[in-house]
Amino acid sequence: MTTSLANFALVLFRPISPGNIGSAARALKNMGLHDLRIVAPQVPFDARATAMAVHGRDVLQSAVVYPDLLSALYDRTLVVGTTARTGLYRREARAVRDAAPELVRAAAANRIAIVFGPEDCGLTNQELKLCQRLLTIPTAPQYPSLNLAQAVMILSYELMLAAGASRDIAPASELALMPEVEAMLSRIADALSAIGFVPEDNPDHIMRAGKKLR
Amino acid sequence: MTTSLANFALVLFRPISPGNIGSAARALKNMGLHDLRIVAPQVPFDARATAMAVHGRDVLQSAVVYPDLLSALYDRTLVVGTTARTGLYRREARAVRDAAPELVRAAAANRIAIVFGPEDCGLTNQELKLCQRLLTIPTAPQYPSLNLAQAVMILSYELMLAAGASRDIAPASELALMPEVEAMLSRIADALSAIGFVPEDNPDHIMRAGKKLR
Repeated sequence: MTTSLANFALVLFRPISPGNIGSAARALKNMGLHDLRIVAPQVPFDARATAMAVHGRDVLQSAVVYPDLLSALYDRTLVVGTTARTGLYRREARAVRDAAPELVRAAAANRIAIVFGPEDCGLTNQELKLCQRLLTIPTAPQYPSLNLAQAVMILSYELMLAAGASRDIAPASELALMPEVEAMLSRIADALSAIGFVPEDNPDHIMRAGKKLR
Repeated sequence: MTTSLANFALVLFRPISPGNIGSAARALKNMGLHDLRIVAPQVPFDARATAMAVHGRDVLQSAVVYPDLLSALYDRTLVVGTTARTGLYRREARAVRDAAPELVRAAAANRIAIVFGPEDCGLTNQELKLCQRLLTIPTAPQYPSLNLAQAVMILSYELMLAAGASRDIAPASELALMPEVEAMLSRIADALSAIGFVPEDNPDHIMRAGKKLR
């Protein structure tokens, strides 16, 4: 894990569904985060949370439960709320993709909390008072309310990509040296001439057709 | 919905969990997609799928079930597989963020399927034979296997953003006309002079301090 990702805590405020808590733990693990905090869960989380965490079980097991939001933020220097709604105190909400690079830079010198509200109503203005910044996830206008664990996944995914911490996808492969390629083509041309497949006087007519960089 | 998003079908191949099918329907609806196809589900989907779909229930109800992958692709001109694994036939897998703009451009003239494998093992090389392109979701190296519905969400989110189809976040607000601002400041200066709060000979010393664009 890069240092900057280690400085992010994802905080679930009064979550209702144990399945979502487990799925959130899995999402953190998928994206290289590990600090999950749970504030006053409305239902004790159980076997269903563990089942949904799958190999993110270690993140779930090390998650600390706090009685209120302020105590979950005791060691944080920057608190970021999430919202799907707009309104008087929510006008400054920024799209997560735009804000992620800045948050990752801030995380080099800060310990950051990203706070998610309960499934049914999200964060209220009461909790937003503790938040210095506000993020939102772009959606289609018809249905802006995301499942809690899905919102946690998108946040985690954006932070990981902004931190440049993902595994390499399809790493570039080193191509052959030019003299090696030419030597191979020349041997093939000799063989194809010997069996009469290419014309001896102009093997390139066939040999160079369709040659391209792979 | 923009035309290009309407040309994407998301195809779940042999899904196991009804909850994931419902969550996938919700994710599509959140991101402005609506064509969900389900191939040979391993378990009949039930009340749990409907519960997880929430307001994406219409997407779930209009999802068509097909007996095999080929029949689900009957009207598609471009088929894109998804994989978390790497291997002989998977080297060309591209990160979804890099590929999304290109897919959205292709969707202007094509009907595209994005295919997701079952929860336990993903797509096999058998299904990949039907796929002309391959996508992967970047993750932390430690745990690349995403929950099926989470993978559907990230794909849908990337397609929606690439299509520019999200709702406006924090739209720019029109500022006041300069003469209106100056008239207001002048009236305030008069009032503050009248009560002796600003010096009459140099009201700007206080009036212009800290003035900034909001």
